[in-house]
Amino acid sequence: MTPEEFRRAGHRLVDWIADYRAGVAELPVMSRSEPGSVRAQLPASPPESPEPFDAIFRDLDAIVVPGLSHWQHPGFYGYFPSNGELSSVLGDYLSTGLGVLGLSWQSSPALSELEEVVTDWLRQMVGLSPSWSGVIQDTASTSTLVALICARERTSDYSLARGGLQGEARPLVVYASGHSHSSVEKAALLAGFGRANVRSVATDAAYAMRPDALAAAIRADLDGGRRPCAVVATTGSTTSTALDPIAAIAAVARERGLWLHVDAAMAGSAMVLPECRWMWEGIEGADSLVLNAHKWLGAAFDCSLYYVRDPQHLVRVMSTNPSYLQSAVDSRVKNLRDWGIPLGRRFRALKLWCLIREQGVAGLQRRLRRDMDNARWLEGEVRRAPHWRVLAPVPLQTLCLRHEPRGLDGEALDRHTLAWAERVTRSGAAYLTPAILDGRWMVRVSVGALTTERAEVAGLWELMRREAAG
Amino acid sequence: MTPEEFRRAGHRLVDWIADYRAGVAELPVMSRSEPGSVRAQLPASPPESPEPFDAIFRDLDAIVVPGLSHWQHPGFYGYFPSNGELSSVLGDYLSTGLGVLGLSWQSSPALSELEEVVTDWLRQMVGLSPSWSGVIQDTASTSTLVALICARERTSDYSLARGGLQGEARPLVVYASGHSHSSVEKAALLAGFGRANVRSVATDAAYAMRPDALAAAIRADLDGGRRPCAVVATTGSTTSTALDPIAAIAAVARERGLWLHVDAAMAGSAMVLPECRWMWEGIEGADSLVLNAHKWLGAAFDCSLYYVRDPQHLVRVMSTNPSYLQSAVDSRVKNLRDWGIPLGRRFRALKLWCLIREQGVAGLQRRLRRDMDNARWLEGEVRRAPHWRVLAPVPLQTLCLRHEPRGLDGEALDRHTLAWAERVTRSGAAYLTPAILDGRWMVRVSVGALTTERAEVAGLWELMRREAAG
Repeated sequence: MTPEEFRRAGHRLVDWIADYRAGVAELPVMSRSEPGSVRAQLPASPPESPEPFDAIFRDLDAIVVPGLSHWQHPGFYGYFPSNGELSSVLGDYLSTGLGVLGLSWQSSPALSELEEVVTDWLRQMVGLSPSWSGVIQDTASTSTLVALICARERTSDYSLARGGLQGEARPLVVYASGHSHSSVEKAALLAGFGRANVRSVATDAAYAMRPDALAAAIRADLDGGRRPCAVVATTGSTTSTALDPIAAIAAVARERGLWLHVDAAMAGSAMVLPECRWMWEGIEGADSLVLNAHKWLGAAFDCSLYYVRDPQHLVRVMSTNPSYLQSAVDSRVKNLRDWGIPLGRRFRALKLWCLIREQGVAGLQRRLRRDMDNARWLEGEVRRAPHWRVLAPVPLQTLCLRHEPRGLDGEALDRHTLAWAERVTRSGAAYLTPAILDGRWMVRVSVGALTTERAEVAGLWELMRREAAG
Repeated sequence: MTPEEFRRAGHRLVDWIADYRAGVAELPVMSRSEPGSVRAQLPASPPESPEPFDAIFRDLDAIVVPGLSHWQHPGFYGYFPSNGELSSVLGDYLSTGLGVLGLSWQSSPALSELEEVVTDWLRQMVGLSPSWSGVIQDTASTSTLVALICARERTSDYSLARGGLQGEARPLVVYASGHSHSSVEKAALLAGFGRANVRSVATDAAYAMRPDALAAAIRADLDGGRRPCAVVATTGSTTSTALDPIAAIAAVARERGLWLHVDAAMAGSAMVLPECRWMWEGIEGADSLVLNAHKWLGAAFDCSLYYVRDPQHLVRVMSTNPSYLQSAVDSRVKNLRDWGIPLGRRFRALKLWCLIREQGVAGLQRRLRRDMDNARWLEGEVRRAPHWRVLAPVPLQTLCLRHEPRGLDGEALDRHTLAWAERVTRSGAAYLTPAILDGRWMVRVSVGALTTERAEVAGLWELMRREAAG
């Protein structure tokens, strides 16, 4: 495709996306596709000859859009907000259009240096001290895997340079609460710890990790001849945005020499608000943390910020230095390939740079506060309504709730909950993703899509009451 | 940013990228930035108030572009071609603009199903049998890490469900040639094997792995009480595009029960040409392979295709199933979160779909053949020129060469090589990345940027001769 062809098709595409975003509220939030229905409409084999780009636009409208669940829809309350603010979308367009890679500093200096600058901007925005260094990873799953590998190597004094985990006589152990994200256990298993060496630490009534239970679990492992290695604490759990007490956990970790990784993937965005920073009090005692700017904050996916206090350790664990990647300036620059798993890197800093500049810190704060206000408003409504319950504290923008008609409990209540949530989602006006809390299904309402205003939240509340009434 | 503001800024951005691509040949290929110079031009703190998008365009021209090395430049012969064909760029624009995520099939059905379809298109295009299933990962580093973790779990009969690598009595061993990519050793270390359990298998005169040396290394480890686990073979090594003999290696792997992973990150694109498929003859005997569509083929970064023969095993190693990700259709669909490390997924299939449709298989083949012809032409010129040597076979598009004036050898020859390569790159007309082969520096010429025609390659040859003559 020539630059002139790109210009023509690109203008059309920008209009198409602008129209999509402007009109997304008219679409059913969750796709009504049946399994296999999109695939069935596509050719089973690739085209031998070129097709006009027109044909692609036709298929987008006819096949792709009906097959999407619309995360940018004002009625999206599922999972977590994954906001692609349009200024950030443009930043990503710049990255893809430029098509440069950061294998090493020299392979595109601005790519590395802008990443240093904007990760430091965000560090300042969330109130972290200058002793943290940041890098952009793809997702929190990857950031947490990197953290647990770094923990493994610190506790084992760089076993990777010897026999790996295979050469270790006393097993290393990882701790997290039962409300930590599924990616924590996955990371521990991928890093080779083994499920037998992952402890699920007990939580309190607010679903937060109990530091005394953590201390006890560590003692038991020490007594058993095992080596406590890392604890993952969560600021804002996935199910209920529970807040593990970071300061108390950091004290235990420091005393026992454990690596403390903080998963603030979702809630980290809220730390842009000074009034929220009590939620991760003690964060300066952590060794690493992850904060996904591609969630509530609005950076286009993928933009997971991973911060560490000891970048030399990270580089020592991750670095490779084959001749074909060496350059004369290596000793004077950061080579970000040594800050994570992939060698190749997109120019991801652009999307965060554009977001922060176009919105300003004040603009981002205003929106985050709007969403928390909307969640609190809904919490008040639910608490006042007969037969409705709010099931967990609401420090941020996620409500855990249930409609509990008289006489319904146990599995009958589960069936009722799943049925009305399904009716809400099938209506096309809102998307809810239920989850299990204390062994029973409940409905999570995750407020915070870019276009969700008070009117939409009020409409959701009306819809939920209607559908729950059957 | 509203959709209307996006429309205006987006049109300007498309024009800016079209102009950039049309004019990139006028820019110096490698950035002339000094370390820290980009950072020094940027504010150390984020803006409190919103800035107009105009300010961003101004900084792009003044600060960012001069800080880039231009991978889409017709004089880019460094590392490997990382072509962002403009049709593929548009596919990525669609993905970012739609802003949908594939956490599960239900969270955007078209995202998962289009990925199934296009990875199967590419399977057909490179001549693989229908017994392979594909998924898009970010990079080959990640794909190879996933492969080695899957190998580890097969050999250890799912040690992750028990004590992990820590519970294994006899160490697992990984094999690769000394010419394998640095990501192979990195993956083995991250997966916990340890450097003491990574074997560097001897190579032949063409830098290809010797199957007899592999067999001998495996025997020695068996005799030593260790467990041979995985062998990584390379189709198209980074330094010289050397071709490990896949069929013979697969026979050894099969006999000894090893996992065979094939790294065809760069050269896999060439398998779209039937006349190149001898290069990985025996590929059907592998367990997994990686092929980066974001390299020579032209998909916008990142688009690394990972194929496996046993998807059930992959899913068993990678799967997580917390309540907040469950849906009623889970048993009838592929949930791609269970096919790799990250939970969140962009709609990456769009960029590959747009590339293949806009170019057609025939169009992609024509361009790949053009690049191989250009490399062969240059090879002929270099072979005929006095004091110039071609140092390795040229099966694809990469030449390893050296200018060897009479009387120069050893470190003096190294200094000469690095000096003239540096002069070529500093000229701004071409970008070369030297590497070490047989202990001596040499110059790699990696032909295959989208805009590189015969005239550019002829110009490079003239420039190299001029700069080598001093």
